[in-house]
Amino acid sequence: MTALRHLTDVASLPEETFRRLLSRSLTIREMMDRGSFPAPVLDRRALVNLFFEDSTRTLMSFEMAAKRLGAHTLTLPIANSSVKKGESLEDTVLTMCAQGADYLVIRARDQGTIARAIDVIEQEGFLASVLNAGEGSFGHPTQGLLDAATMLRAIDRTPDQGLTGYKLAICGDVSHSRVAASTIEASACLGAEIVLGGPVALLPDAPPPGVQAMTSSVAEAVSGADFVMTLRLQKERMTKALDLSLEEYHRQYGLRHEVIAAANPGAFILHPGPANRNVEITDALADDPARSLIRSQVRQGVALRMALLEEIERGKSR
Amino acid sequence: MTALRHLTDVASLPEETFRRLLSRSLTIREMMDRGSFPAPVLDRRALVNLFFEDSTRTLMSFEMAAKRLGAHTLTLPIANSSVKKGESLEDTVLTMCAQGADYLVIRARDQGTIARAIDVIEQEGFLASVLNAGEGSFGHPTQGLLDAATMLRAIDRTPDQGLTGYKLAICGDVSHSRVAASTIEASACLGAEIVLGGPVALLPDAPPPGVQAMTSSVAEAVSGADFVMTLRLQKERMTKALDLSLEEYHRQYGLRHEVIAAANPGAFILHPGPANRNVEITDALADDPARSLIRSQVRQGVALRMALLEEIERGKSR
Amino acid sequence: MTALRHLTDVASLPEETFRRLLSRSLTIREMMDRGSFPAPVLDRRALVNLFFEDSTRTLMSFEMAAKRLGAHTLTLPIANSSVKKGESLEDTVLTMCAQGADYLVIRARDQGTIARAIDVIEQEGFLASVLNAGEGSFGHPTQGLLDAATMLRAIDRTPDQGLTGYKLAICGDVSHSRVAASTIEASACLGAEIVLGGPVALLPDAPPPGVQAMTSSVAEAVSGADFVMTLRLQKERMTKALDLSLEEYHRQYGLRHEVIAAANPGAFILHPGPANRNVEITDALADDPARSLIRSQVRQGVALRMALLEEIERGKSR
Repeated sequence: MTALRHLTDVASLPEETFRRLLSRSLTIREMMDRGSFPAPVLDRRALVNLFFEDSTRTLMSFEMAAKRLGAHTLTLPIANSSVKKGESLEDTVLTMCAQGADYLVIRARDQGTIARAIDVIEQEGFLASVLNAGEGSFGHPTQGLLDAATMLRAIDRTPDQGLTGYKLAICGDVSHSRVAASTIEASACLGAEIVLGGPVALLPDAPPPGVQAMTSSVAEAVSGADFVMTLRLQKERMTKALDLSLEEYHRQYGLRHEVIAAANPGAFILHPGPANRNVEITDALADDPARSLIRSQVRQGVALRMALLEEIERGKSR
Repeated sequence: MTALRHLTDVASLPEETFRRLLSRSLTIREMMDRGSFPAPVLDRRALVNLFFEDSTRTLMSFEMAAKRLGAHTLTLPIANSSVKKGESLEDTVLTMCAQGADYLVIRARDQGTIARAIDVIEQEGFLASVLNAGEGSFGHPTQGLLDAATMLRAIDRTPDQGLTGYKLAICGDVSHSRVAASTIEASACLGAEIVLGGPVALLPDAPPPGVQAMTSSVAEAVSGADFVMTLRLQKERMTKALDLSLEEYHRQYGLRHEVIAAANPGAFILHPGPANRNVEITDALADDPARSLIRSQVRQGVALRMALLEEIERGKSR
Repeated sequence: MTALRHLTDVASLPEETFRRLLSRSLTIREMMDRGSFPAPVLDRRALVNLFFEDSTRTLMSFEMAAKRLGAHTLTLPIANSSVKKGESLEDTVLTMCAQGADYLVIRARDQGTIARAIDVIEQEGFLASVLNAGEGSFGHPTQGLLDAATMLRAIDRTPDQGLTGYKLAICGDVSHSRVAASTIEASACLGAEIVLGGPVALLPDAPPPGVQAMTSSVAEAVSGADFVMTLRLQKERMTKALDLSLEEYHRQYGLRHEVIAAANPGAFILHPGPANRNVEITDALADDPARSLIRSQVRQGVALRMALLEEIERGKSR
C-alpha cells in the first residue's frame, strides 16, 4: 500500500486509505476515551499552521493532534505577517518549507489554494505534506472524514460494514458549505442514502454525486433519516439571499424535537459547529444526550487528525 | 489527603492544601534560583489557556509553569474565535474538553464564569481541571497565594509559622481589585493583621473578613506595617470616580519613601504589576532593592503555579 | 575560547566566534538538507520572543531553530500586552527574566533597545541572553551572518577561505536598511569587495567602513559583481522621498536579467525577503534557480540561528 502524502479532498483518497483512516481514528478515539494516546511518531517533526481564514476549533484540533503525536507546532501569525503586505501564497509556502516545515496545515478562502501550494512545493523539490483544513466552499476533508467516523461509531459499525441501509439528511445552507461537500463525499463512499433539505436558494442547482434527492421541505428530508446534520447558517448571507428573519428561518428550516419526530426512532443529530443556537438548531436538541453527536464529532476530529498524521508519517523516510 | 481538582478561590482551599501549596512553591522557587526545575510530571498533559480578557503576564506565567512541567500548552485565540461570534462559554469550554484538554486556565471578566465552567464540565463527565486566572473584581487566587508566599519568603518563615504578628497595609483601589480580594484571603489565613487605605470611593463599604481596619489615610494605613502592597490604578475608573488628576492621586495616595517612613524599618513593598510608575508608586520605591518585592512576586508566581499544577496532577489517574 | 553571551551586532563578535558561527551554520545546513538536526542541547531552556515590531519570518525562524534544539518557546503577545499600556522596556524585560526566560529574542523599532535590555538584565543579576532580531535601521546581525554563510556556501568556500577576490553589490534603499548594515559588516570581515548602488537619497552620506564605493548607477554597481543583493523597498518611504512611481523605480533601480548581464557570469542574487516582486526585482530573476539564493538564505537562517543558540548555550552552566 502506498502511503498518502497530501490531503486534498475526500474523493481522491484511495478507497483502502479512506477506510484505514476511519478505522484508525476509531481506535485512537477509544484510546483517548481511556486517557491514553498513540506513540509520538511525529517526534521532531514541525507542523506549521497557515490559516488564511480564522477557524479556531479546526486550528486547535490540528494543534492538539500534532502535539499529542510529538510534533513541534508553529502558527504563522497571518494578521501581522507579510501576507498582509501582499506576499504571494507561493512565497509564503516556500519560505515555510525552506525553514523546515514537514507539514503545512492550510485553511484558505479561495478554491485552488491547496492545489497551488502542493504544485509549488513539489516543483521546488521540498518534501513537506499539505493538509487541507478547509478551502472556500469547496471542501473540508478532515471534517467529512470525522463526520463519517462519528456516524459509524454511533451505530457501532466498522468502515467495512459502512453505512449502507442508513439515511443521512443534510439540512440548511448546503450550497455554500465546505463541510457538506466533504461529508457528502465521505458518507456516499460508505453507502449511505443522502438527502438534502433547505431553502431552494441555499441548495445546489443539481444533486451532487452521491445525493439521492433534494427538497425544500426539511420535514420531508428528515423523514425516515437515521442521521440528521444541520449546518451553520451564515447569518449575513441568509438574510440577504432569503429575506427571512432568523425566527422565520428557524420556523421553516431549523431542527427541533418536533421536526425530528419524523426521523427514525433513535436518529442522531450532527452539526460541524459552532452552532447558532435556536437558529438552525434548538438548545434542547443540540444538548440532548440521546440524540446529539456534536461533542462526539469534536472529539473524533482530534482522533481523525492523529490518524491522518500517522498515515502520512509512515510514508516519510527518516 | 484528598488532592485538589479545581482552583476557584483561596477561601475554599482546605487549610492543609493551602499550606502545602505555599510550602511547595517556596521549595520550587529555591530550585529555580539554582537553575533547576521539578520533574516533568505533566508530561503529555494538555493545558489550554482561555483568556476572555487580556493578561499577558498571568498568561506567560501559567505557560512557563506548564511547559517547565512537561505539559503541552495551547492558547485559544479568543479575538479571532467563535467566541466573538457569540458562542456560549459552555460550548467553548466543552469543545476544549472534547478535544482533550486536561487543564483549562480561565481568565474572565464576569463573576460566576469559573463556577459555570466547572459545573458544565462535571455535568458532562469530563475530567479536566479548571484554574481561575482572575475573575472580574472577585478573585485572582494564584496571585493571592503567590503574594502570601512572597511575604513568607521575605521574612524567612514557613507557612506553618505564618504571618502572625505582621501587619500588611493594602493601598489604593481596593474595592475593584481581584488581587486585593485574594491577597486578603491568603494573608488572613496566615494570621496577618490587615489594614486597607485609600480613597473612600475605592474602599469596600465594610471591611471584608480578615481585615482589621480601613482608613482614607494611606499614612495611617502604612503606620507600623511590615508589608505595604499598592494596586494598579485603573486610570479611567479613577479619574471618573474621584475627579482627581494623576498627580493629585499620587500626592494623596501614592507610595514613596517619605510615606513608607511611617512603616516598620525594613518594611517591604508589593505590587501585582504592571505598575503605573509615579502614579501609585514612585520609580525609586518600585526599584529599591532593599524594599521592593515586585520582581520576587513575579518569580514566585511561576513557582506557585508549578506547585498548583503538581498538586492537581497528583489527583489524576494515569 | 570564551563563549558568547549576547548577540548585539556583527562587528563586536570576536573574529574566532564569527568564523565558528558561520562554519557551524554550514554544517547544520547540511544536516537539515539530509533531514537531520543537531542534538537538542537547549532541552528545558525557555526562549521568549519579544517582538516590538512585526517580523513574521524572523520570528518563525528563531522559533523553528529553538524548537529543533529542544527549547520551550513563548511569544509575548505585544499587541495585547501591558507594553501597549505604557509598560517600560525594562519592566517587560525583567518580568520575563524573573519568570525564568533563558533567552530573549528582541525585535525593536528604536536604536539602543538591545543595549538597554542587556544593561538592565546584567544590573539585576539575571543570566538570560539577549539576541538582536533586528533593531531600527541599525542592525540585524543574524541576517548579516546568514547572508555571509549563504554566499560562502554558494561558492563552496569555508569561512577561513573567506570572500576575498569576490565582489558584492548591494542595491536599493541601503541607508534605511538594518540588513544592509549587518551584511556589510559580515561580508567585509570575510574580505569581500563591497559596492553600494541606488538613488542618492537612499544611500548613506559616506561609505560605511568596509565599503569600497557608492554609485547612483545600479548598472555600475553590478558591473563585475559575483553577488548582487537588493533590498526590500519601503514603498511609502520611497514614493515620499523620491517622488518616483514604482514602475519608474523598477526601471531605474530594479534588478532584472538585463541589468545582471553586467555582473560576472554565474553571479548570484540575494534578497532578505519578503520581496516586492517586480519592484526591486523581477519574478524571473527572483525565481531563477541558477541565480537566486533567496530560498537558500531562508534555510541558512534557521541553521545560523541554531548555531548561535548552540554557541551561547555552551557558555551557560547547567
